[in-house]
Amino acid sequence: MKKTFKSDKEKIKVAVLGMGRQGQIHSKNIAYKIPEAELVCVSDISIERAEKVGIEGVELYDDYKEILERDDVEAVVIATSTDTHEQIIKETARAGKDIFCEKPIALSLEAIDEVLDIVDENGVKFMVGFNRRFDPTFMRVKEHLSNGNIGEPHIVNITSRDPKPPHLEYLKVCGGIFFDTSVHDFDMARFLSEEEITEVYATGSVLVDERIGELGDLDTTMITLKFANGAVGSINNSRKTGYSYDQRVELFGSNGCAIGNNERPNRVELTDPEGTHKDVPLYFNIERYPEAFFGEVNAFIQAVYNDEEPPVTGKDGRTAVVLSIAAQKSYEENRPVKVSEIG
Amino acid sequence: MKKTFKSDKEKIKVAVLGMGRQGQIHSKNIAYKIPEAELVCVSDISIERAEKVGIEGVELYDDYKEILERDDVEAVVIATSTDTHEQIIKETARAGKDIFCEKPIALSLEAIDEVLDIVDENGVKFMVGFNRRFDPTFMRVKEHLSNGNIGEPHIVNITSRDPKPPHLEYLKVCGGIFFDTSVHDFDMARFLSEEEITEVYATGSVLVDERIGELGDLDTTMITLKFANGAVGSINNSRKTGYSYDQRVELFGSNGCAIGNNERPNRVELTDPEGTHKDVPLYFNIERYPEAFFGEVNAFIQAVYNDEEPPVTGKDGRTAVVLSIAAQKSYEENRPVKVSEIG
Amino acid sequence: MKKTFKSDKEKIKVAVLGMGRQGQIHSKNIAYKIPEAELVCVSDISIERAEKVGIEGVELYDDYKEILERDDVEAVVIATSTDTHEQIIKETARAGKDIFCEKPIALSLEAIDEVLDIVDENGVKFMVGFNRRFDPTFMRVKEHLSNGNIGEPHIVNITSRDPKPPHLEYLKVCGGIFFDTSVHDFDMARFLSEEEITEVYATGSVLVDERIGELGDLDTTMITLKFANGAVGSINNSRKTGYSYDQRVELFGSNGCAIGNNERPNRVELTDPEGTHKDVPLYFNIERYPEAFFGEVNAFIQAVYNDEEPPVTGKDGRTAVVLSIAAQKSYEENRPVKVSEIG
Amino acid sequence: MKKTFKSDKEKIKVAVLGMGRQGQIHSKNIAYKIPEAELVCVSDISIERAEKVGIEGVELYDDYKEILERDDVEAVVIATSTDTHEQIIKETARAGKDIFCEKPIALSLEAIDEVLDIVDENGVKFMVGFNRRFDPTFMRVKEHLSNGNIGEPHIVNITSRDPKPPHLEYLKVCGGIFFDTSVHDFDMARFLSEEEITEVYATGSVLVDERIGELGDLDTTMITLKFANGAVGSINNSRKTGYSYDQRVELFGSNGCAIGNNERPNRVELTDPEGTHKDVPLYFNIERYPEAFFGEVNAFIQAVYNDEEPPVTGKDGRTAVVLSIAAQKSYEENRPVKVSEIG
Repeated sequence: MKKTFKSDKEKIKVAVLGMGRQGQIHSKNIAYKIPEAELVCVSDISIERAEKVGIEGVELYDDYKEILERDDVEAVVIATSTDTHEQIIKETARAGKDIFCEKPIALSLEAIDEVLDIVDENGVKFMVGFNRRFDPTFMRVKEHLSNGNIGEPHIVNITSRDPKPPHLEYLKVCGGIFFDTSVHDFDMARFLSEEEITEVYATGSVLVDERIGELGDLDTTMITLKFANGAVGSINNSRKTGYSYDQRVELFGSNGCAIGNNERPNRVELTDPEGTHKDVPLYFNIERYPEAFFGEVNAFIQAVYNDEEPPVTGKDGRTAVVLSIAAQKSYEENRPVKVSEIG
Repeated sequence: MKKTFKSDKEKIKVAVLGMGRQGQIHSKNIAYKIPEAELVCVSDISIERAEKVGIEGVELYDDYKEILERDDVEAVVIATSTDTHEQIIKETARAGKDIFCEKPIALSLEAIDEVLDIVDENGVKFMVGFNRRFDPTFMRVKEHLSNGNIGEPHIVNITSRDPKPPHLEYLKVCGGIFFDTSVHDFDMARFLSEEEITEVYATGSVLVDERIGELGDLDTTMITLKFANGAVGSINNSRKTGYSYDQRVELFGSNGCAIGNNERPNRVELTDPEGTHKDVPLYFNIERYPEAFFGEVNAFIQAVYNDEEPPVTGKDGRTAVVLSIAAQKSYEENRPVKVSEIG
Repeated sequence: MKKTFKSDKEKIKVAVLGMGRQGQIHSKNIAYKIPEAELVCVSDISIERAEKVGIEGVELYDDYKEILERDDVEAVVIATSTDTHEQIIKETARAGKDIFCEKPIALSLEAIDEVLDIVDENGVKFMVGFNRRFDPTFMRVKEHLSNGNIGEPHIVNITSRDPKPPHLEYLKVCGGIFFDTSVHDFDMARFLSEEEITEVYATGSVLVDERIGELGDLDTTMITLKFANGAVGSINNSRKTGYSYDQRVELFGSNGCAIGNNERPNRVELTDPEGTHKDVPLYFNIERYPEAFFGEVNAFIQAVYNDEEPPVTGKDGRTAVVLSIAAQKSYEENRPVKVSEIG
Repeated sequence: MKKTFKSDKEKIKVAVLGMGRQGQIHSKNIAYKIPEAELVCVSDISIERAEKVGIEGVELYDDYKEILERDDVEAVVIATSTDTHEQIIKETARAGKDIFCEKPIALSLEAIDEVLDIVDENGVKFMVGFNRRFDPTFMRVKEHLSNGNIGEPHIVNITSRDPKPPHLEYLKVCGGIFFDTSVHDFDMARFLSEEEITEVYATGSVLVDERIGELGDLDTTMITLKFANGAVGSINNSRKTGYSYDQRVELFGSNGCAIGNNERPNRVELTDPEGTHKDVPLYFNIERYPEAFFGEVNAFIQAVYNDEEPPVTGKDGRTAVVLSIAAQKSYEENRPVKVSEIG
């Protein structure tokens, strides 16, 4: 042996809080794929679950506060349960660490505004995890806009349907379909068009599972969008396709139209006497968005590393919630709601 | 020579009124492709244009009333200018002849109702020319519903965009985008889903040509639909793609999702260093819908021949106009409009 | 009535010999779709079958010789059984009429050469019915070559498979798969590449139906081509796909690659839990090549009308047979055969 | 901190020899993605290049023999230059370590046979790196055969073209296109069809770069295959597409036809007035086959871990070379060559 490999690159020390499926994905991406980062520790309220990190030498905590006290940790990825985001962001900001947080920031506009104020006051970087912005297909659609291939945006159509509904327990706490599902699509509509949404009209039904209706929620929805430049848009959501994740976008403009289609597990077509068959699209977000999960965390690390503004801001996270609130109000009052009504 | 061919099939004698592009297409289909029909005469206010029929032996009139007086003509195809439909349908019905008429029946609900009453009173068959119902792609989408492949309809999305705006002169008299363009899509939404539309919300902008706005019209629109069974839908229209006719439908249901895509002139893909390229979709309705133009007239002739109800009724024509009125009202008042408000 | 329509265009008077399926298609195209032509008469050895022409006023013969004696007939389409081509071409040429003949011209090279000599001597136009040259997809592939999009041709791949084998009775007289099936593909390879084939290697098996082997024929073959410019190619044939006609071509060159895919009856994709499904390609040549059947006859009529050379010559017909002979010899001797060996 | 993560899984200690691009890929896959393996050390004749492993704590050697002397190393991945494979396999086998080796095993059949004998004598596991067998698209094509969807294989077509030729220096030592490129396709043909190839006919030209011809090599080839069950096949190779890696397969059988198409970087279609455009396929093997590079090494590790036969054997590696030799001989003698002639 001549020597043992040791990187001479200075690395940002990162912690991941919450070791659910998303936290595990972030951990592996940070540890293995981002040379500018080092995963030093993770936490979970269950230390057994913290073990799921599965990466040699990573330190495990059952109390994230201990991590926040560590001077060496510079950046924190928050992948804990939704109802803890507000509190943990505040504490992390006050500890002076840069923050990547899964959406949503918090459950009310007031809480979000308070959180963003504290982030600002403490001068830490803050990025919200709208992973789909980093999907290669959706990025390419947007690039066609940036390149001028599409011209001015005129119509945005987003299809976003889950393979099957989440468990009832989750449905009870997720805030409803507009906050849980459409929120991603609102962000996508803004991202793709580079325009702000000024008005929303939402309608919907319970067609998949009547227990969803009993919770006061919807499972099949159609949202109309009006953009600042006069463009129009639609978002259709369903809690159940039966086949797989159905995630497609269309951006139509004055010069052309870009369509981002579903990913499939392979490029095989079988023709037999019944027809020509392809495999169904990838099953759900874990299967569909691996590049996006990597891309978002990498973008965050690079922003920290280069001392730049992260590409998805707290304002982006806030705006998506504002739009969800507008959609909910629109549905309840069965009328178009101006975004300026919400704040 | 042993003999001269003469069909021994008894044929329905048909006249076509109006020898614009549509009248010419109907004439050729009737004369050449429908063994149960014989094209005996055509009319146009310009006898020069009547010559465009281009079929040996067909008799030409510059006054359609003379045709209505002929006892031998059993069925009449009305392809005259829109503003004459109301009057000519009435006269044709009173002359006791079966009627195929291009949409729209008339320009107001009152007029339509009066027309349909006269048709009823005279006991003639009546069919409205919603040609897209006979497009092989859209028929196949609907067939997937009938076959149970889609299950219950949940979401209907219709994209319907013209390659370029019509002339200003036409725009002035066409009644606006909801009556001129969306009317076809309303019919398609009902046709595909086999459900009635109960509520409409329409929004839109002038993004293509400001002269369209000066006429009080729109060129880019998004319409939200609510169906009797709770399904939701969207229709997006544009007066200008720049590339070609963009006519696609999607029917998503409890068991599956059928998408009807655009037709192209060939099945060639060229790959070069810039990408993989296909030719643009077919340019406009004349190029896209030849099978549909044949199919609708053939369906009419077969209904007359077999003494059956034509597959697109006066009520279908009326409902599409009701929905257009609802869309217009929705846009003007910026609120969802129940179809029952219109009548 | 003001008048009766009568075309003022001078028309070529055409006869169609043979009223099988192909003769009927040619007759309708000539009568209805080509303004420069008039179908005056048809023949068939069965006068009942001649009735199948189905076009009012066309004169019917059971002896084609009577047609050849008519002075008014200028152009003749020969769609009789293969074994009669040689004799009828000669007689028609001697009668001084221009000739469109279904392939093959004759069954031996000697016979073909004699036929072509007689055609030459009598100075009539002569075109062989390689319909696929007029298919919009294959024409577009070749156009990409002409436009320079492909550059110099390097590789040609042709897939040509029937949905099911013909009847045994037909198989006995068709001359074998290289003469009956590959002959079209040899012509296509020359047409697409604009290069002559200089060497052929053919191999194959009996995998579909052993009765085909008992006839000394093959049902599954692979032919390697070498072109004058050094390009290489392959043709794969099968007598049975089980699904439908499988007719695809690929032209790969120094700048790009054009692929011509199968036609399907519609543009619908259904996604259900089992996958995403399209309908099978169109069933057989009648369904697949309607534009090509029109295109070839129209090209012939236009050549006669404008006194130009038809786009598919007797030499083209001869060369395809030469290549079939070379393939047969190659298979029998299991070695590559230079085309110059055949003549 | 409660604890530091340490896997309790017993792991196979692995070394990677050669730290070129392929060695780096194997190293990362072993270190990060295969829980049953631990990358303990790597070697390269250049210690600077060994640094490229880029994984903390891995030990670096400039002499692989030192690694072979380590008792703890159980499995070795050989990714050194082609001309060293023969020698290193022998030494590694004699050191009693399981072996994964990039193709080819050696450059002559005699050498291969000697190597395989030594592997056998030493009772170590041995796997050859035909990575494409682990590509999700090609695996799915084969799965359609295993599932019975295709029936008996009748025709295999393989397209395998590089984006651009390798450097002349590489071309001089690679053994020629049949040994360097087609060898992968021979293996693919056997893999997909589950049939042995019995006869080969190869032809080709120099169309891309005449310097390739000056080396006595070809750059554009077509190979005909005959399989034991009577099936036929074709392989077409080119050293230059100009666009990207063009890697497609087709398996046609008695029940159906499966086509494996190229991968692209995204699922976007842009339609503008010029046409509908997709991005070109992925550029080269590094971009196209990441799952396959992981899959092959993972399959090897799992075989070692579970003490099973690796899925690609020394015989597979040998057969691909036999077929390359047959192709070379066929080209040189311009005749079909029976595989049994080679040995």
